[in-house]
Amino acid sequence: MVVMAIFFFGFIIGWFAKPTHSETEKQKDSSKFLKEFLEEMKAENIKQHLRKFTQLPHLAGTEQNLKYAEQIQREWQEFGLDSVDLVHYDVLLSYPNKTQPNYISIVDLLGNEIFNTSLAEPVPEGYEDISDIVPPYSAFSAKGQPEAELVYVNYGRTEDFFQLQREMGINVTGKIVIVRYGKIFRGNKVKNAILSGAKGIIMFSDPADYCADGVQTYPKGWNLPGGGAQRGNVLNLNGAGDPLTPGYPAKEYTYRSKLEEGVGLPKIPVHPIGYHDAIYLLKNMGGPIPPNNWKGALNVSYRIGPGFIDDYKNFTVRLNIHTNNQIARIYNVIGQIRGALEPDRYVILGGHRDAWVFGGIDPMSGAAVVHETVRSAGRLLNNGWRPKRTIIFASWDAEEFGLQGSTEWAEDNAKLLQERAVAYINADSAIEGMYTLRVDCTPSLHTLVYDITRQISSPEEGEENISLYESWHKRDNWTNNRDAPRISKLGSGSDFEAYFIRLGIASGRARYTKDKKTERYSSYPVYHSVYETFEIVDKFYDPSFRRLEAVARVRGGLIFSIADSLVLPFNVNEYANSINMYALSISQIGERHPEQMQKYDVSFNSLFSAAANFTAATSDFHERLQSLNTADPLQVRIVNDQLMHIIFAPSSHNKYAGESFPGIYDALFDIENAADPEKSWDEVKRQISIASFTVHAAAMTLASAA
Amino acid sequence: MVVMAIFFFGFIIGWFAKPTHSETEKQKDSSKFLKEFLEEMKAENIKQHLRKFTQLPHLAGTEQNLKYAEQIQREWQEFGLDSVDLVHYDVLLSYPNKTQPNYISIVDLLGNEIFNTSLAEPVPEGYEDISDIVPPYSAFSAKGQPEAELVYVNYGRTEDFFQLQREMGINVTGKIVIVRYGKIFRGNKVKNAILSGAKGIIMFSDPADYCADGVQTYPKGWNLPGGGAQRGNVLNLNGAGDPLTPGYPAKEYTYRSKLEEGVGLPKIPVHPIGYHDAIYLLKNMGGPIPPNNWKGALNVSYRIGPGFIDDYKNFTVRLNIHTNNQIARIYNVIGQIRGALEPDRYVILGGHRDAWVFGGIDPMSGAAVVHETVRSAGRLLNNGWRPKRTIIFASWDAEEFGLQGSTEWAEDNAKLLQERAVAYINADSAIEGMYTLRVDCTPSLHTLVYDITRQISSPEEGEENISLYESWHKRDNWTNNRDAPRISKLGSGSDFEAYFIRLGIASGRARYTKDKKTERYSSYPVYHSVYETFEIVDKFYDPSFRRLEAVARVRGGLIFSIADSLVLPFNVNEYANSINMYALSISQIGERHPEQMQKYDVSFNSLFSAAANFTAATSDFHERLQSLNTADPLQVRIVNDQLMHIIFAPSSHNKYAGESFPGIYDALFDIENAADPEKSWDEVKRQISIASFTVHAAAMTLASAA
Repeated sequence: MVVMAIFFFGFIIGWFAKPTHSETEKQKDSSKFLKEFLEEMKAENIKQHLRKFTQLPHLAGTEQNLKYAEQIQREWQEFGLDSVDLVHYDVLLSYPNKTQPNYISIVDLLGNEIFNTSLAEPVPEGYEDISDIVPPYSAFSAKGQPEAELVYVNYGRTEDFFQLQREMGINVTGKIVIVRYGKIFRGNKVKNAILSGAKGIIMFSDPADYCADGVQTYPKGWNLPGGGAQRGNVLNLNGAGDPLTPGYPAKEYTYRSKLEEGVGLPKIPVHPIGYHDAIYLLKNMGGPIPPNNWKGALNVSYRIGPGFIDDYKNFTVRLNIHTNNQIARIYNVIGQIRGALEPDRYVILGGHRDAWVFGGIDPMSGAAVVHETVRSAGRLLNNGWRPKRTIIFASWDAEEFGLQGSTEWAEDNAKLLQERAVAYINADSAIEGMYTLRVDCTPSLHTLVYDITRQISSPEEGEENISLYESWHKRDNWTNNRDAPRISKLGSGSDFEAYFIRLGIASGRARYTKDKKTERYSSYPVYHSVYETFEIVDKFYDPSFRRLEAVARVRGGLIFSIADSLVLPFNVNEYANSINMYALSISQIGERHPEQMQKYDVSFNSLFSAAANFTAATSDFHERLQSLNTADPLQVRIVNDQLMHIIFAPSSHNKYAGESFPGIYDALFDIENAADPEKSWDEVKRQISIASFTVHAAAMTLASAA
Repeated sequence: MVVMAIFFFGFIIGWFAKPTHSETEKQKDSSKFLKEFLEEMKAENIKQHLRKFTQLPHLAGTEQNLKYAEQIQREWQEFGLDSVDLVHYDVLLSYPNKTQPNYISIVDLLGNEIFNTSLAEPVPEGYEDISDIVPPYSAFSAKGQPEAELVYVNYGRTEDFFQLQREMGINVTGKIVIVRYGKIFRGNKVKNAILSGAKGIIMFSDPADYCADGVQTYPKGWNLPGGGAQRGNVLNLNGAGDPLTPGYPAKEYTYRSKLEEGVGLPKIPVHPIGYHDAIYLLKNMGGPIPPNNWKGALNVSYRIGPGFIDDYKNFTVRLNIHTNNQIARIYNVIGQIRGALEPDRYVILGGHRDAWVFGGIDPMSGAAVVHETVRSAGRLLNNGWRPKRTIIFASWDAEEFGLQGSTEWAEDNAKLLQERAVAYINADSAIEGMYTLRVDCTPSLHTLVYDITRQISSPEEGEENISLYESWHKRDNWTNNRDAPRISKLGSGSDFEAYFIRLGIASGRARYTKDKKTERYSSYPVYHSVYETFEIVDKFYDPSFRRLEAVARVRGGLIFSIADSLVLPFNVNEYANSINMYALSISQIGERHPEQMQKYDVSFNSLFSAAANFTAATSDFHERLQSLNTADPLQVRIVNDQLMHIIFAPSSHNKYAGESFPGIYDALFDIENAADPEKSWDEVKRQISIASFTVHAAAMTLASAA
């Protein structure tokens, strides 16, 4: 009888001990491993990785970029990943013609080219013997040699073209437009120029937008020299990836559209120049003096044209563009750590490897950080750690040609990723300034970002004893409403697009940035020029490499926590806050037009009601989470599935899945310039309906499962 | 020491006993409960349900159909479901004008209507006092009174119009066409008529297509009387559901398109007639004698026209159509049994409730079967059973108006269903003949269908001792290649469309059918007429109600097994067989054009290679399944997720997800009539590429998770 009782006692203990005991232990281990993981990432290693991968130009589609891919594959294998594969696609890229250089001329009345823009940037010291530096060009420009009068259109934004045409009465049909870089994506400048009827477009870097005050030009400082110019693609892809295989991976067997039907290819020649060359084009222009906000920092009048005056009267400008589109093979490196418990749940850290030239900042400051993260993860694996979920590391190719490597892989794996991807953390340039941290992410990640940054030291000199969180908080407090470091919503323009916008995966990015309140220049001055070298980081941006180390720890910490937490560390209450905020700010835009709102019967009530419903669902969810039996793997999985799918939206619906409501924003912003207000307000109504539906659907995901 | 050992022994036993012991027990219980569940469904009850729900006409959007919904809700609650809700949508329906009847006239030279078609069908005995019997009409017909010469175009198929125009040289622009019902969906006849330029279309039921040999007309037999006519919608929705809210549920807040932009609404008047009226329109027609396969069974010459001859020369035909489109509220009844282990996995049994008139066969023979299934499930719940997964029972509304109730609910819950729905079993008419079982389903369900039918008795007299499987096998063996009852692939035309085609959920349907080898008429003779009464089932189709009982057990058995099996009872090897078969049959169509295949560089190799890859993945998967640790709930869930998602495809890709390759089929079938062969073959190539991708993606789903 006693024996029975003891047996029974043992049985009961055994019965209940198994799951709960081990889960608690595992969570403790996980915290310990997180600390180890973060500390293992070292500034000095990141410096070595950056130096190693910025020695040679490695444009997408070139042999050198394949060599770096193979080196990364080899080293990731050595670091200890379970598998590392090269995954290739055959996509449409674009290169200058090697025998016929691109340039812009001023042509006199006799047809002589009396001025030609430079064919290349002056090469920085130490790199004089490097071949294969691609000269500045606009990738995917149409070929051609259009010749016409020049018209200056400020930044080439929609509002700039409107102002030009409506207020100044200048028609650019058949002209060549010249615009300064900055404010919007260059592809949109080109689109606007095409829509306005221009037959060519020149983009230049104005010192007002590409030089910081009191900073010398490279190599004495980090400002853009006058001979430097910004490369870049001028596509309007809307996330299509390879222009010839929208929706599908560009594999050997994949059907390809004809070039004429390729997505987003501009129909006119385009070319970028530096500010030394720009002066020659601008200084003889005639026409009206522009408003002050159209004037840059060059010593010219910024007259609008059309065309030249005085000695240059009736001279024209000619673009000579011979750039070729070409199908080329690109290579992603895909590394994996298999998850111990849920191998079918994926946490992805991805960033690109291809660079316009050396990629000192863009992207290798990010790639070096990923490399160090992989090394650290490999070290942990050797120490007996294995994450609950699978971690995928990606070195993307051809980001500079329209996010192609990341998009093709997303298309290739769309089905799996929609079902299984938990989060995507982007790893493009890790630094663009020397001030503080910058984070853009899905609202459900806010809390985790704060948690992680509290566990990381500030990289700033004199802040050895405070956390990154405190340093960041001090420098960039959110708003008066909320006492916490500012986090922004994700935009577009890097490899997270396909994952976040198309597939609806929780996503985030983190980098070191400038002080937006005082530093007014666009991105960072040497962006996409030959001056993005290892030295510009080593001398100016991060001599101690502790800023990159801090970014490595933020990105790595996010990946680690999402892959290894029992319950996904997503806070959906934060999501609800954001949605309510967005709804309010949209309605305020609408209410600037109270009469039209009434006339066209527009109301934001359904959106507010959906947001309220969602808010209730999130707080119910967090309440239920309190009583979750974490010892029951099925119950935990069910809750995690809800958290994973909260921002998923079928691609046929609102692509931003309640993250914000770009459809309504766009529709509202169109109102003021709308030709047909009834149609425009109808579109606003349609978008409000879509957004309301999306928010209701997200609330259903969080509701009790049945 | 001994105490410790005994304790330890107990501990170990407790540790290991917990999951495995209980799983085995549960599986035994599950089999026992399945038997109980099947036996609980009784012919006599189904008869009572059918009688109860066919007393009064219950067209979608009418009060009576809401009353039946409320009654079903009440009874399902009484049966013991966990929840039963009415879920409404406000959708576009279409009704005849009550004060201006629809009819067709022959108009003489003076403009007199010398013949008018009947305004209603003769009401069957016993129903004389029933009001609210909607007269035969074509729902969503355009309004109007077009008048023109008549042209007869056989079944109104694409090939019929081609033959008419190309071989007979008859142009129907500005004419009214008359076509017989059958062979294709009536909406396609209307579309073809519009494309050919006709200004109106009349559809009639020819005895060749709506009367069985040697059978008397209702009420003496089950053939269509001459005064009967087929109602039906004439939309071309392509699965859009409510024409005004494509992609979104038709809720109060939902944005609605303008009527002119509604999906699939025909632009010309349409009207259906019976064969008595058809004789009057056909008998005086002139023009050529048609080929024999254009001739029906009426005592007329089936001359093609255009127009009449002899005494009727230059007389015209006029359609008088006053049907109104109207937004109306519809009601789905949604009942649930919460899953015990995985409440977030859904198995759905859904069928419609709305009927053109009484719905004796369509749909109430199916609805009565669902009702009995719910009753049986409720009984089991009372006996202590609860399925592992959630079961959802649905009584859809407005199926007859374009699958609207089921589609709106699918749109409303798209996100949840894509993530959580395991299978959808359709429950439209349970009987359309008296011969044997007919099953159409996703290939992965084949094995389960055979298993279930082996556990059910044949309903046929004299077959008391053999199973349904044996009876079915004997009557409809698959092919010479395979000795098993025939199962077909799912087509379209009932409520499974949104679930299977749009959301990619494993789906199936089962009903009792005629002998296709000998019974040549379309569907069943009284289809969509007032003669679809309780009596036609009770007297002719299934006097013992044992056929409906057998169908109830098949549908119910599928739902039960999918909801309650530990590992989902899906056989993906069957899927691979089907894919290989489809690929072969498509390539054979292509190879009828070897020269063009070569000229346009078309190859099916990528598809064969994808199919081979998929086949390897399915057999690997089944092999791994052998060593699955069924005691580990997480491992079981991972495998089940793979099985659940195998046929999922993002809606932007091939909608049929490898079930078959309709894109390639369509493209190939277009070849022969193509104006531009290069373009058409290019489309074939594109479709082969899409299909290959889809199959590769499905294989990835089955691969080892990481």
